[in-house]
Formats: sequence, C-alpha cells, structure tokens
Amino acid sequence: MEFPSKLIENAVEELAKLPGVGRKTALRLALHLLKEESEETFLLAEALVKMRTEVKHCKECHNISDTEVCGICLNPLRDRSLLCVVSDIRDVIAIENTSQFKGLYHVLGGVISPIEGVGPSDLHIDSLLERLPNSEIKEILLAISPTMEGDTTAFYLTRKLRDHNVRITTIARGVPVGGELEYTDEITLGRSIVERTSYGKN
Amino acid sequence: MEFPSKLIENAVEELAKLPGVGRKTALRLALHLLKEESEETFLLAEALVKMRTEVKHCKECHNISDTEVCGICLNPLRDRSLLCVVSDIRDVIAIENTSQFKGLYHVLGGVISPIEGVGPSDLHIDSLLERLPNSEIKEILLAISPTMEGDTTAFYLTRKLRDHNVRITTIARGVPVGGELEYTDEITLGRSIVERTSYGKN
Repeated sequence: MEFPSKLIENAVEELAKLPGVGRKTALRLALHLLKEESEETFLLAEALVKMRTEVKHCKECHNISDTEVCGICLNPLRDRSLLCVVSDIRDVIAIENTSQFKGLYHVLGGVISPIEGVGPSDLHIDSLLERLPNSEIKEILLAISPTMEGDTTAFYLTRKLRDHNVRITTIARGVPVGGELEYTDEITLGRSIVERTSYGKN
Repeated sequence: MEFPSKLIENAVEELAKLPGVGRKTALRLALHLLKEESEETFLLAEALVKMRTEVKHCKECHNISDTEVCGICLNPLRDRSLLCVVSDIRDVIAIENTSQFKGLYHVLGGVISPIEGVGPSDLHIDSLLERLPNSEIKEILLAISPTMEGDTTAFYLTRKLRDHNVRITTIARGVPVGGELEYTDEITLGRSIVERTSYGKN
C-alpha cells in the first residue's frame, strides 16, 4: 500500500503494531483522527503516554495501580483471609465486575508455557509464597483459565502451596449459566456431573 | 467496567473513541502497550501527533500531502489531461494501488448527503470548477461509489461540468473480477449486460 504522505505512513505503521489492527484498519484510524479536531489526537496521545509512564504495579498483588499499593489491597473492607490467584490483570477486572469476590488478589503476570519460554521464575510466584507467612490468608482460590498452560500453572502452584497451612480451591467448572446442555463440550459436561452440587446451593 | 487505575481508564476512554474500537478492545490495546517497552507507546503517540499537526492538504487536489502541493500533482510524468474526481483520500490510495491510473486527482472531501447535512458547498466542488479554465484537462473521470449519495453527487457534478469543454466519464460497473454471476446482485448484473464491451477489449 502506497501512501501520499510519509507522516500518515508512519502513523499507520505504528498503529498497525497494535494487536488486531491491520494496515487497512490503521489507515482508517489515522484518517479518522485527521478528520476530527486535533485536540482529539492530543488527548489520545497524552492519555497513552501518561498511562505508560505513570501506571504502577501494586507491590503487594502486582495488579496495575495509580499508587504504590493498589486500591483493593488498601481497602479495609476486603476479606484478607481469601486470596485469589489470577494470571492476568484482565482477570482481576473480569472478577471485580461480577461483584462476587471480596478477598484480595495476586496477579501472576502470565502462565507457565514452555513453548513461549515462560517458566515459573518469570511469574510472580516467589512473591506469592512470600506473602503467605505472617498473613491472615486462609484460602487461596486459583482462578486460572482451564487451558493446558493454565492447568500446568495451577498444578505447579498446588505443589508449592501444599506445605503452607492454606486451603486451596479453584473456580467451579461446569455448564455456563444460560448454556445449553447439548452444546456443552463433553469434558465440561462430564466435570459438571462429577462435581455436582446440592440443589439450591448458591 | 471498573478499572483498577484512573490512568488506564482515561487511556481506554480515549482509545474507545476511535471507530470500531469498543471498551473491551480499548482495554486490550492499553494492556498491550503496558506490556511492551514504553518506547513503543512514545513512538505511537509521537507519530499520531506529528501526523495531526504537520499533514497538509494539497492546495491543487485536496489530497493529503507532506508538502503544499502533493507528489502526484507535482509529478511531471502524470497525464495532466485526465482528472479523476473521488470523494475521499482513501479512494486515491485504492486507485493508486491499482497502478492503472496515470492522471491527476481531485478529492471532494465527501459526498452530497442531505441526511447528514452535507451540501455541495461543503465539498471541494468550487475549486474543481476553478481548476478547469486554463488547464490541460480534457477528461474528467468520476470515480465515486455507486451509493445513493454518490450517484447524487455524480449527477450534480455532471450538470455543473457540462458547460465546460471536457469529456465526462465514470468507472465501469459490472461483475467484479473473480465474482460469480449467480451471486452478483441483479442491478449490477443488469448493468454489466447493458454496458457490455467487445470481447478482448482491455
């Protein structure tokens, strides 16, 4: 694709580095910004740079935060005996949106993946183990996606955690709410039967 | 959706203003930038701001350009007797990519659309008419999308242009190359029969 302007070409190339943005989409975004007031572009650029330079990672749970320790860790109303381990910041946002979890979090920053060269030492596992002694944590809820890498990570964690005096739980697997039995894959359906709960529970 | 950081929330809000980018996609883009080196974010922001502040519109054809007059208008090898009228800068890029057009362009900056409040005076039609006297232009090719607004614009232009001594042409309508006859809509198929060309032409 040839561009009538080096400036646009440069902007398109930078935009096309974003995930899911191809060169055609990037061009559409660039031309959109050219049509809008320049103020819009300045606000966008400023917000991105400000976010990239000023966002911190909470030194307790590794969640993103505007402060040294994040709002969740600082919140006196959260249940300090319950710790939810997730792989990614997006999982924290997803779980927070359910309003069903009142404990604290620990963000691993990924999952163990030999193919991508991610080992346990690349994740925030040591800092998780360091959090446990002298803490109020009684239960660790593993909320890790049930993929092969996720299951490997959960298995590794349970082995590391079993010497600590904590209950280890995992999020329930089963038929999604609103899901149809006949369209549920057989592994999920099988686990939903093995791990059946008393009727009316929850 | 609640965010653990005001900085991220701000970046997500600005990104979500882009066309086709929802809040979930915006969050994915923001978290991607946070994972990459900060240099990436700086380059993106700089490219956008530089484009927005420095890009010019060619004073001849209204195409985007890094200079007062664009590279196409300045190119001595282009055929100055043939002028292609398009509604948008993207159309120039699309036609340039075909390598089939060697004339000059004129970008209208939109199409006549009473619903969106765009009248002829909002488009670069006056400057088109001003280009014609004392120019070498012999043929004007209307390359405007065959939508209702596009056809209205083309009709308006042909009436404005008929007093000038120029041949007015339009891009061929027909079955797309590689297209299947049975899946072509009947208006296109009908026009492809009415406007049939001698076999072997082109």
